[in-house]
Amino acid sequence: MNGRMLSKNEVKYIQSLKAKKQRLEANAFVVEGHKTVLELLAHQRWIVQALYGTETFLQTIPKNLTLPAKTVTISQEDLERISFLQTPQSCLAVVALPAAASAHFPANNWSLLLDDIQDPGNLGTIIRIADWFGIEHIFATEHTADVYNPKVIQASMGGFLRVQMHYGPCAVWLQQQQPVCYIADMHGHNVWQLQQPQPGVLVIGNEGNGVSEHIAAFATQTISIPKLGAAESLNAGVATGILLSHLLQTTSKA
Amino acid sequence: MNGRMLSKNEVKYIQSLKAKKQRLEANAFVVEGHKTVLELLAHQRWIVQALYGTETFLQTIPKNLTLPAKTVTISQEDLERISFLQTPQSCLAVVALPAAASAHFPANNWSLLLDDIQDPGNLGTIIRIADWFGIEHIFATEHTADVYNPKVIQASMGGFLRVQMHYGPCAVWLQQQQPVCYIADMHGHNVWQLQQPQPGVLVIGNEGNGVSEHIAAFATQTISIPKLGAAESLNAGVATGILLSHLLQTTSKA
Repeated sequence: MNGRMLSKNEVKYIQSLKAKKQRLEANAFVVEGHKTVLELLAHQRWIVQALYGTETFLQTIPKNLTLPAKTVTISQEDLERISFLQTPQSCLAVVALPAAASAHFPANNWSLLLDDIQDPGNLGTIIRIADWFGIEHIFATEHTADVYNPKVIQASMGGFLRVQMHYGPCAVWLQQQQPVCYIADMHGHNVWQLQQPQPGVLVIGNEGNGVSEHIAAFATQTISIPKLGAAESLNAGVATGILLSHLLQTTSKA
Repeated sequence: MNGRMLSKNEVKYIQSLKAKKQRLEANAFVVEGHKTVLELLAHQRWIVQALYGTETFLQTIPKNLTLPAKTVTISQEDLERISFLQTPQSCLAVVALPAAASAHFPANNWSLLLDDIQDPGNLGTIIRIADWFGIEHIFATEHTADVYNPKVIQASMGGFLRVQMHYGPCAVWLQQQQPVCYIADMHGHNVWQLQQPQPGVLVIGNEGNGVSEHIAAFATQTISIPKLGAAESLNAGVATGILLSHLLQTTSKA
C-alpha cells in the first residue's frame, strides 16, 4: 500500500474507461462506492486490478478481505480527478471484465431479455429490479446499453454483482432453446388477468420502438399493463418492475 | 408573431426559472417539447405567457389553438441558448404557475402522498405513473421536489398537465380527512397477499429514510413488495409503480 500522487496517464487511463471501446481494449471497467467495492473484494469472481481509496476508506476494509497488489492511498482531491460521479465517494476500483458465460434460459426461474434498451439509467434500474426479485440472468441484444457503462453500474446499486448479463444473438437463443416467452407489448394481454403463467423469460423492448418483430415472433404470450389514464407510456424500468411483480406473484402462489 | 434575436436579459430571465425561488418570484415556469406545448395551448387551465418556437414548429400549430400575444419565432441557435434540455426541441413555453387548489383526498379513487421525495427524476416518473393509472391527485410534503422543476416537467412526459400536485401540511390533511391510508414500508404487509384493499391514499417516503413517523402514524396498513433476491431497495418510482399496480388490480376487480 503506498500513498502517492496520481500521474496524468493514470488519470487519463481511468477516464478513458467511460467509453465501451476503451473498456474492451483495456479489458477493464470502473466501480465506485464504498459498499459495492467491499462486495467486489469479497467475491472471487471479480479481479480487482487496482484499488484507489482515501486513507480513511482503506482503514475500514475488513481484515479478512485480500487487497489487490495495486492498492493506492490517494487524497480526496485526486479521487475527484478520477471519479465519474458528481459526488465522488471514498474509493474507486478498476476491475477486469469477467469472461462471458454461456447463455442458457433457466428452466424453473424467471429471466429477462432486453431488446435494445438504450438508456444506461434504465438498464441499471432493471438490473436493480432483477436483483430485488432474485432474477439471476438477463439476456440482451448487442445494441442494448453496456452493463459496464459507469452510469449502469451506478444505477444498478450493486445489482451487477449478482445478476449475470448475457449479450448476444437473442433471437438465435430463443430459436434454439424455446423458453416460455412473455413479450411486453402495449396491446398485449392484461397482466392483471393472466391465468397461471409458467416461469419463463420476460422480454422488454426498446424505449421508443418496443420489441422488434424477429424477437416478438417467439412470444408464448404478449402482456401489457392496463392503462386507466392518459399517459402514452411508462418508463421502461417501471414497466419491467410492474410486469415482473405480477408474473412472480402468480407463479410464487402456484 | 415576430421573428427576432433574443436579448441577453430574456435569455437570463428564462434561465433563471431553473431555480424554484425565481419561479415563485416570477410566478412562471418553463415547458419544452413539441407535444407537451401543444397540449398546454389546448387547455384553458394554463396561461402561456410567452411561446418561443422555430418557424417550422410554429407553422405546425393547428389553427384552432389560440397563440399567446407574445409568440416569438426564433432560430434553432437561439432556442439552444434558452433550452434546459441536452437536445433542445423546437419550442419553449413560459407558463404562469397555476393557483393552488384545495387539497381533498378523493373518496372513490386512489391518490398518492409523497413524503419528501427528493430526486426530480423520481418525482417526474411518479407523476407519469399516476397519469398512466388515472390517478388525479398527488399530495406532497413541502420538502418534496418541486413539480415545476424543469427535470420533473421533462420526466413526467406531459403528466403534470393532468395530475394535480398539492403541496402542504400532509399530516394535518391526513388528521382532518382520515382517508384509508397505505404506507409503503420495507417491513409492511406483502402487497401480493393483500385482501380487499379500499381505495385510499398510497404514501411513498423519502428515497433514503422512508416515510417519516408523524405520517406513518396514520397508516390503515403498511405494505411492501416481496424481496426474493439480495438488492437493498428498489428505486422510489419503480416501487410506486409496482405497489399502485397491485392495489389497482385488486380494487378494479372488486
